[in-house]
Order: sequence, then structure tokens, then C-alpha cells
Amino acid sequence: MTISLNILRASSVSCYFRNILVIFLLAGIATVCEAAQHEFDMSIDEVTIDVAPGFSNKVFAFNGQVPGPLIHVKEGDDVMVHVTNNSTLPHTVHWHGVNQIGSWQQDGVPDVTQKAIQPGESYTYRFNVDRPGSLWYHCHVNVWEHVAIRGMWGPLIVEPKNPSALEKEVTLDAILMMSAWQSPYANVFGQGGGPKDVSDYFSVNGRSFPITQPIRVKKGDVLRMRFIGAGDETHQMHMHGHDMLVTHKDGYPLASPYYVDTVSVGPGERYDVIVKMNNPGRFIMHDHIDKHMTNNGASLGGPVTIFEYEGIKTDDWYVWHGKAYDPNFFYSDSLKKGYGLFNSAPFMGTVNKQRRRRR
Amino acid sequence: MTISLNILRASSVSCYFRNILVIFLLAGIATVCEAAQHEFDMSIDEVTIDVAPGFSNKVFAFNGQVPGPLIHVKEGDDVMVHVTNNSTLPHTVHWHGVNQIGSWQQDGVPDVTQKAIQPGESYTYRFNVDRPGSLWYHCHVNVWEHVAIRGMWGPLIVEPKNPSALEKEVTLDAILMMSAWQSPYANVFGQGGGPKDVSDYFSVNGRSFPITQPIRVKKGDVLRMRFIGAGDETHQMHMHGHDMLVTHKDGYPLASPYYVDTVSVGPGERYDVIVKMNNPGRFIMHDHIDKHMTNNGASLGGPVTIFEYEGIKTDDWYVWHGKAYDPNFFYSDSLKKGYGLFNSAPFMGTVNKQRRRRR
Amino acid sequence: MTISLNILRASSVSCYFRNILVIFLLAGIATVCEAAQHEFDMSIDEVTIDVAPGFSNKVFAFNGQVPGPLIHVKEGDDVMVHVTNNSTLPHTVHWHGVNQIGSWQQDGVPDVTQKAIQPGESYTYRFNVDRPGSLWYHCHVNVWEHVAIRGMWGPLIVEPKNPSALEKEVTLDAILMMSAWQSPYANVFGQGGGPKDVSDYFSVNGRSFPITQPIRVKKGDVLRMRFIGAGDETHQMHMHGHDMLVTHKDGYPLASPYYVDTVSVGPGERYDVIVKMNNPGRFIMHDHIDKHMTNNGASLGGPVTIFEYEGIKTDDWYVWHGKAYDPNFFYSDSLKKGYGLFNSAPFMGTVNKQRRRRR
Repeated sequence: MTISLNILRASSVSCYFRNILVIFLLAGIATVCEAAQHEFDMSIDEVTIDVAPGFSNKVFAFNGQVPGPLIHVKEGDDVMVHVTNNSTLPHTVHWHGVNQIGSWQQDGVPDVTQKAIQPGESYTYRFNVDRPGSLWYHCHVNVWEHVAIRGMWGPLIVEPKNPSALEKEVTLDAILMMSAWQSPYANVFGQGGGPKDVSDYFSVNGRSFPITQPIRVKKGDVLRMRFIGAGDETHQMHMHGHDMLVTHKDGYPLASPYYVDTVSVGPGERYDVIVKMNNPGRFIMHDHIDKHMTNNGASLGGPVTIFEYEGIKTDDWYVWHGKAYDPNFFYSDSLKKGYGLFNSAPFMGTVNKQRRRRR
Repeated sequence: MTISLNILRASSVSCYFRNILVIFLLAGIATVCEAAQHEFDMSIDEVTIDVAPGFSNKVFAFNGQVPGPLIHVKEGDDVMVHVTNNSTLPHTVHWHGVNQIGSWQQDGVPDVTQKAIQPGESYTYRFNVDRPGSLWYHCHVNVWEHVAIRGMWGPLIVEPKNPSALEKEVTLDAILMMSAWQSPYANVFGQGGGPKDVSDYFSVNGRSFPITQPIRVKKGDVLRMRFIGAGDETHQMHMHGHDMLVTHKDGYPLASPYYVDTVSVGPGERYDVIVKMNNPGRFIMHDHIDKHMTNNGASLGGPVTIFEYEGIKTDDWYVWHGKAYDPNFFYSDSLKKGYGLFNSAPFMGTVNKQRRRRR
Repeated sequence: MTISLNILRASSVSCYFRNILVIFLLAGIATVCEAAQHEFDMSIDEVTIDVAPGFSNKVFAFNGQVPGPLIHVKEGDDVMVHVTNNSTLPHTVHWHGVNQIGSWQQDGVPDVTQKAIQPGESYTYRFNVDRPGSLWYHCHVNVWEHVAIRGMWGPLIVEPKNPSALEKEVTLDAILMMSAWQSPYANVFGQGGGPKDVSDYFSVNGRSFPITQPIRVKKGDVLRMRFIGAGDETHQMHMHGHDMLVTHKDGYPLASPYYVDTVSVGPGERYDVIVKMNNPGRFIMHDHIDKHMTNNGASLGGPVTIFEYEGIKTDDWYVWHGKAYDPNFFYSDSLKKGYGLFNSAPFMGTVNKQRRRRR
């Protein structure tokens, strides 16, 4: 039966048609097609985002935002994504972590599994999310520019059919996509640094302190953080005041989870950690690579968040005293909305002036 | 009862007073306050240390030394540290790995948990060492300068109440704090490299070969090495001739220890390894990042040690033939002295001439 | 008996003599000396290899090739290697992962275990391969030049006496030695970059895409890949379309293997992964450090391979359409030939013109 279903999956036919087939073949099994069918639209747009105070960067933005919209589906679901390239350069989308069982042509690698999507063109990806976990998607064309410094990445979270007991305890979910920027190339599409160029801004979800956001919790919360190495650098994420239990690597559950206070998140990797929020106070989390704690050499910057517990009074000297709070900066609200594709207004870029003039 | 004790801990009252309270509340429990109370003084001084032949570096030195003094306590102990800032810039002390249960204000993060300690000022930290393991302390102000290239770090070793059978076998203990330096900024307090600057000296315990030290052992020794990623670079520590069993990550025991011959120690991380010294000879341990094996490009340099077994005759061509031996370079002697704070004369810097003149 | 054998090993006497001794001491044990004796010749030659289109590099090449020849032996074997230094600079050979039980003088570290082998000189290493796994060998003189950018490394694979059930299932074996190059120093023996210099070409087995090679498989294959961090950079190897099970670290079996889609291979480290090739198609594997996906800044380059399944039709737009296939680029053929030392013609360099003139 598994084989039959795989064949059906590969054929990319609609679920209704599958049901008919399955009923025909395996009469009496009513729940075979419990997997959902999702159909999403994603554009690739040229916009500008503010990364840090005084520093903005031109990006190729999925649905106009960096990071890209959350795609939240369930293990076994079928996904169809219509990608429209509104930018001036070719792209593809690779679904990092999806194995593409029987659908290698959907893997999104230019000149290997498809030809790149040219400016003005569209392309439809169809695949089954064959394994659960913290996955992500990103462009696979000229990655040293498009992925490293143009923000072409977003989260693809695949809920498992059978979560562990600990996963069921989670009360708060956060996604942290780590990356870096090279300011000399911030304003020139189609150019990126050579090997001698270096990153000078360092981000979580595309922003650097102080325009990152806190994570607000209450005592008793069970927090899951999904770290995604989306950019070109390793980030040594150190959480103060708590024990982080590493439960998954690259979306795969670990047979032997382990505690850390500092998790090394390299390019392409994902680490899920689950943390019992049992220590009311105000605790920082930051990258322990010291230069990543600056914005182009000026301290304090970089991929910083602060855990703010309910009931802890702010102080007037607190660096984020009076800060406007965005509860969705780490996708926490979007992740509560069930399955689908979720855009996020605060991540939206502004249309580049140059392009606007041309229109 | 745990709750009561937590409340008491947070109140930072003396143990004697606690005992009275506890006796009052819970008459008949005699051993409640078995945890020790420690009270330490730490200054922050501007001195110069010799890192390598021909290369010295100005540092902000805890108690005048780099690395800082060993703080050696037991799980559950209460610690009070009076920090006096004798330097010309503000600092704090973060106790990396202490969770600060009920004492978040003691976490040492400027503008988050406290205001920085200004030059000439003092500050007292009070906390309970709520978890055992290889911890450390470091400044949390302008870490890209103070931690990365000014030596503001030291070891905080918290002995577990219940060590494992293997830990009990340990006959020799060593602490290895890994870091790097940027020579263009060696002599200018208050400046550090921007993102384009690179490290050019690489150290263990603040020194680079050949002014590092051997580790002398005898057959049958069980050696524990605590690697601490104190600086800004990853170090790939490769021990020759032996199997290193990784037992702890960031001070936490691993459910599934694993063998390595090369351990990757990133910024902020700690790895405990236990090694059965069963192979008499002379074996090097070094960083396998090749450029880290130089002092500013000149080979051989960097974080190198050599395991010298008792009974192995030296050779006149041996690079450390006739070397003056310091048995405490890796804190091995200090770690045998029981609990407390231990300064180490060989790590002391010399007072900067410029400052001396001003006094 | 183990003790006796260790003593015998240390004496470096011939196996026949050992047998006599052992028979004398422990009459009736016939199979004590089942371990093989190997005697190999290795030269160190100055040649030039093509790393990428338009980029060649002068190397110190073991047996004239980069990577060096495969040494394939069995746990417990005795190995004798006659090394002849035909180059213009001193070298040694370190057998990375061999513990040299009782034979520390064979460890190949200049000025610690031996004096370096001068130009024109020879040296014979004798040791027992006391532990199985993915080992390697490399020069230990001026490693920042000789190892990082002159290709002085090769694989030393030691088959275990007792492979695991999963290891027995392996149908295809591949060795991937990761490294990088610095083009400004490509043509000058005796010089290498200082700390400010950076790598600009990134390789697997000494070559960068497109002159790397595919890995051809058929459905049902069980592929083992042995990643070896031979150079100066970390490589984040991401395989598309499959689950990689990490089974060994530095040649040691893991008690708790874990799945990844991206494995971080740092300098000096080895990771064995076993992959069930169950997903016919065309899937890329590449370094997820984006700048490593270029040749000196030009995309696509770097340590790239593509898994080509039997029965998948090529497309005329496929980047490796019509490519000449070398089935031994990852040592897969050499590994099938039993035990011994195996040179590999495609890895051979060409004799440097300058040297040829001098002769």
C-alpha cells in the first residue's frame, strides 16, 4: 500500500482523483487521503529592508518580505507553490529538507533539476512534504549573492504526525533565521562580495539589534526555538539563564537529546531546542562570536533577543524600555494559525525607489 | 521546602541567618545549609601580558591576570564577588553557565540586568551556583573588544554533587581557554577591530607556542581537559596518540558520550574530555586550523601543548628540550587546592608604563 | 596476552619472528598473527594540479598526486612506509588517527617525535594501525602552507575487524577530502598566506566544480561517504533528497548515530555517513557556505557533486550533460581492490616546468 501511495504521489494528481483511485483499488479504507492539499502563491520582488538603524539592504524578497512567509504544513501534505519572478535576475526555489521522493524535478537546483526561472516568468513546484521538522526554502541560483546577502529564504515548518511527549508540551514557538550582510553590496543587485569581502552586519530574521525584538514569556511556558542557518556564517547562539535541550538536528529527532547553553548554528543547519521557562527575569540571548555583537563594528548590535518574563517590572535604564512590541517577529503568532502560508507585515520591504520610477 | 529555600536564596541573607530561619520554619532538619558561602574580591586592572615571543597585548585583567583567577566551588554553593573596576572603561561580569535562578539581576549584562560598572566603581555579585560543570566568567560590555582581544575571561569550575564513576577516576585536571588576538589593536585600550580585521595570534590560556607549556603525565593517569571557547574563533583541538571521550557539553553531562581525536570548540562553548593516558611518549595537541598554527603567519605558533610522559627521555633536538616547566599553566595545581578563588602568578601582567606614569 | 602482544608490537620485529615468540610463549594459539604486514613507498614530489578551469596550483604531492594515494588496510595490520622527499622543502608524515601505541616516535611531528625529512632524504615509518576507521595522513611541517594550500594529505582507511550490521550493508564507498586554496600563493613554493589572506577556491578531493565528478548510483545502493576535513576551512556539506545517517566521528563509531541533511566538517575532523539510495533522480550535494559555491567569486564552483541514479535520463540543459565520467574520483574503485596502497592516475599532477628545466 505504501508503494501504491508513492506512485500516486509522484503522479501529482489531485486528491479527489486519488481518492477515487484508492477507493477503486482498496475499497473500504476511508481515511487514506487524510493529507491536505495546499496551493500557494509566492512572488519574488525587489525591495529594500531596514536591517539596522542607518543600514538598509536591497533584497530579492519572497512575497515582498525578508525572511519569506511562513509555510506551515503537516507531514504527508501535498504542496503546490506558484512562484512568480518579478525581479531582474533568474532564481529557483529549493525546499531544503524535503526529500522529493519520486519528484526530484521539483528540487529547485538550476541546471540540475530545472532551468532557472527567468525574470517575468513563473514556475509551479509540486511536492509532498515527506518528512517532518524544521525545514526551510531558499533560492539556489548564485547563492553567494541571493542567499548570503539578498535574503532569499523563509521557514517551512512541517508538523510531525507523531510528535513526542515533550513536543506536545510546547506552549510557545519561535523561528530564528540566522544570517549576515555585506554593506558595500547593499544597494547593487547582481553583485556580491568575492572571497575577500566580509560580512559586517549580523541578523536574526533579517534584523540586527536594536531593531530585533524580545521574546515575551510567562513562567511555566515551554518554548521551542527553531534555529535556521540561513546565511553564510556560523552563529553561536547563547541563551542566558536557562537549559536548552537540543531535540532535533536538521528537522530529524535526536535519539539522544543533549543540553547546551550555546548552540553552534552553521550555514544550512537547523537546531530545534526546547526550553522550560522557569526562571522569571530578563535574560539576553546573543551570538557568542564577539564581532557578531556589533553593527559594522559598533556595539551593541547583531542577532540579539531578550526574554522578558511576565511580571518583571521594566527599569528606565533597560535598553528596550518602552519598546514597541511585535509578537510575531519570531513567527510565534503565525505558527498558531494552523496550516497555510502566512505573510508577515513587519517583514515587508519597501519598493525600491529606482524601480518605482521605472514603472 | 525547595520553594522556601529559593526564596531565601533570593534574599541574599547570610547562611547563619538562613539557618535560624530554616530551623525556625523546619525544626529538626540539621543539614539544610550544607552549601558553602564564598566571598571573593576581583579587580579589573589594565596590564600588559606577553602572548608570544615579541608580541605583548594590553588587557583588562581580572585580578591582574589573563586568564582570570580560577573560581572553584561546589554545586549549590553561594558566591559573593566584589568587583572593583580599576580600568578606564566600563565593565560587567557575566557568569556564563550560572542560570541565576531567582537572581536574574546578577547576570551581568549591561542595560539588561544592571548598569555597567564605571571606572573607579565597585559592584557586588551574589548568586548560587545552581548547576555544576565547566563554566566561565567574562565581561559583557563591548565584547568584541573586551572579550575577543582584551582577555576578560576566567574559569568557573563547579564540582557536581554527584560525579559519574568516570569523573571520579580523574587523576589530573586541565583547563584550556581558547582565544585569539589582533596585533594592530594590541596597544590601544578602547579600540578593537571592525569586521574587516582579523586575528593574527591564537592562544591557549592567553599564550601562544612556544611560551605555552607541556602537560606532564604518567602512564595510568586519567586526564580531564576542559576546553573553553573564550575568544572569537573556533578552534579544532586535535590530540595525538589518544582517544578523547567527550563527556560534557557546556558543563552538561552527555547521555551519549562519544570519542573524538579532534574537538571543535566554538566561541562560548565548553567541551569536557576525559582521556586515559595509556601510551607513553611525547604527543602534541594543537589546533587543526592550519593558520592557527602560526604566530602572525610564522610557524610554529598558536595554541600548542605537548603531553610529556614520565620516563620518556628528552632528545636534544626536542623543541622544548630544557624548557622551564610550570605545572599550573593549565590550572592543574590550583584545581587540587579545594574550593576558593586562586590567583596564578605566571598569568599576571605587568602594569602598563603609561598608567604608572599617571599615578 | 594483550600485554604481551603490545610489547611485541612495540618491538617492531617481523611478524614471523613474532609468531615464533608467541608460539614459544603461548603454545597452541595458531591464529595470533593474522594481521598483515604492508610495505609501501611514498615520494613527495613538486607538481602542479588543475584545481578549477583556469586555475592550477603547485603542490607537494604524495606519489605525485593530490589527494595522496589511498592506503587501505585492516585493523591490527602492521604498516611500513618508505617516504622519499623529492621536494625542495622539509616534510614529515603524520598518520592522523593512528594512536601509535608503543611507537610514538613514528607520529611524524617535527622537533617533537623526529627531525623533519630534508630534501633528498628518506625516512621509514613503522606502525601498527591500532584503531579502525576513516583516518588520513598529512605533512606536519609548516602546515599553514603544506597542508592548507599544498595538498599534502591523503586517505588512510582502516577496515574494522568487527563492522556493524549497517556497515556490512554498504554497497558503495566514497572518500571526500575537503580543502581550500589561496590563488595568490598558487605558484610560489615556500610561501603561504598570512592571517589576512583568505581562501578563494574550495575543493573536494582537490578539485572545484565543474571539474569535480558525479557519484553514480542505482536504487538500492547503500552509500558510505567519508568526509575528511583536510584543509583550513569548515565545510557544511548538504546532500539533497536523502537522509544522511552520521555513524562515525573521527573514525570512532557513535553510540547514538543521528540523521542530518547538512554535516559540518571542520579541519582535522572526519564524519562517516551512510545513506540509503532510495530516491532515483539527480540530486546535488554542495557546501552550504555560500561563498564556497564559487571559484574565486564566480558561481557555480566549489566542492560540488551530483548523485546520478541509473535509469534517469539526462537532459540537454543538464550542467554535466555528456561529461566524461571518472568512477574513481571518490576512490570508489580503489576501495574495492582489497588492501594496499593505490595510486590514482586522474589525481596525478604535471611536473613543474621550472623544475624540469633545472634537471
